[in-house]
Amino acid sequence: MGIEKYNQDENSEYIYEPQILQKLDFSKSPAKFNPQISAAQPGEDWMVVRPLQRDDYNKGFLQLLSQLTSTGNISRKQFDERFTQMKNAGGYYVTVIEDKRISQIIGAATLTIEQKFIHNCSVRGRLEDVVVNDTYRGKQLGKLIVVTVSLLAQELGCYKMSLDCKDKLIKFYESLGYKLEPGNSNAMNMRFEEPS
Amino acid sequence: MGIEKYNQDENSEYIYEPQILQKLDFSKSPAKFNPQISAAQPGEDWMVVRPLQRDDYNKGFLQLLSQLTSTGNISRKQFDERFTQMKNAGGYYVTVIEDKRISQIIGAATLTIEQKFIHNCSVRGRLEDVVVNDTYRGKQLGKLIVVTVSLLAQELGCYKMSLDCKDKLIKFYESLGYKLEPGNSNAMNMRFEEPS
Repeated sequence: MGIEKYNQDENSEYIYEPQILQKLDFSKSPAKFNPQISAAQPGEDWMVVRPLQRDDYNKGFLQLLSQLTSTGNISRKQFDERFTQMKNAGGYYVTVIEDKRISQIIGAATLTIEQKFIHNCSVRGRLEDVVVNDTYRGKQLGKLIVVTVSLLAQELGCYKMSLDCKDKLIKFYESLGYKLEPGNSNAMNMRFEEPS
Repeated sequence: MGIEKYNQDENSEYIYEPQILQKLDFSKSPAKFNPQISAAQPGEDWMVVRPLQRDDYNKGFLQLLSQLTSTGNISRKQFDERFTQMKNAGGYYVTVIEDKRISQIIGAATLTIEQKFIHNCSVRGRLEDVVVNDTYRGKQLGKLIVVTVSLLAQELGCYKMSLDCKDKLIKFYESLGYKLEPGNSNAMNMRFEEPS
């Protein structure tokens, strides 16, 4: 079977409903864009901001992720299973930017939604796995993808959105509205094995 | 209907299968216990470490959480819906310590499992909503519940376990094996509204 079993409809299947991205109000973000762009109007007619699709396996999504960290050698079957698991679980808002001229993913970020009992059974968002193709400088892609999923978290009712980052990225995220909260901004990790 | 609709079997329903807690090997943790205890042998015969159950709504689980942060006024129906949503989504390892003499929850911590594409479609753990009843001093409850869910993350195949914490808790978590990674230990937040 392999790739052949995926017909056009299955390939274009989204991991979440794309309509929600069209109604995000970028004027609510403290981020400054120049020129002003948004998920609905990303600034170039060959660029689109949308949820991950099954066919992004064939559009360089994993190759882009591998610029961020190791991905290993993920087969179509593995990708497809994880896509299905994430979609069934709900709460995985994997979001990408595609260059439609060449059918390649050039930016990605994931919002995960964590269900809580606290705060009246609220939900919390997390920003994960942000990466942009650095040959597209000057297109504000990093800002565009992060603000998109941050506004999405708000739209979905999160009481807060959280991220962990390296020192060199603090200023970037501060410009988008994220804060290091005094006395409460420590990200700690325990690592169990070398990632593959 | 209300509470009456929950029969004994439904009330004792676990949010995840409890057997896995019995096989956690506490000698793998760098945490030092004195005396040595574990999830299977928590040190007192009236104490049990187990997954959250539906009936914990009636055993002070939410009252305990409210010692950590605001919970709002959660009805039985809301609790039940969130319990079901978490169980259906998978990945919510809400774990508690009960004092069986008084049928009250005296400690809690949650491991959430986040599915990834990176690292060969791996999974990452997060430690959330840790709270212990501080009238049980000297029972090592904080250490017990955190080590339990940390070993659980490893058992479930996570490549790492992460947490965000206040400055005053850094030493405690370091003693359990968590590290502030140099240059990469910043937890940032964007808050959207006052939590209820």
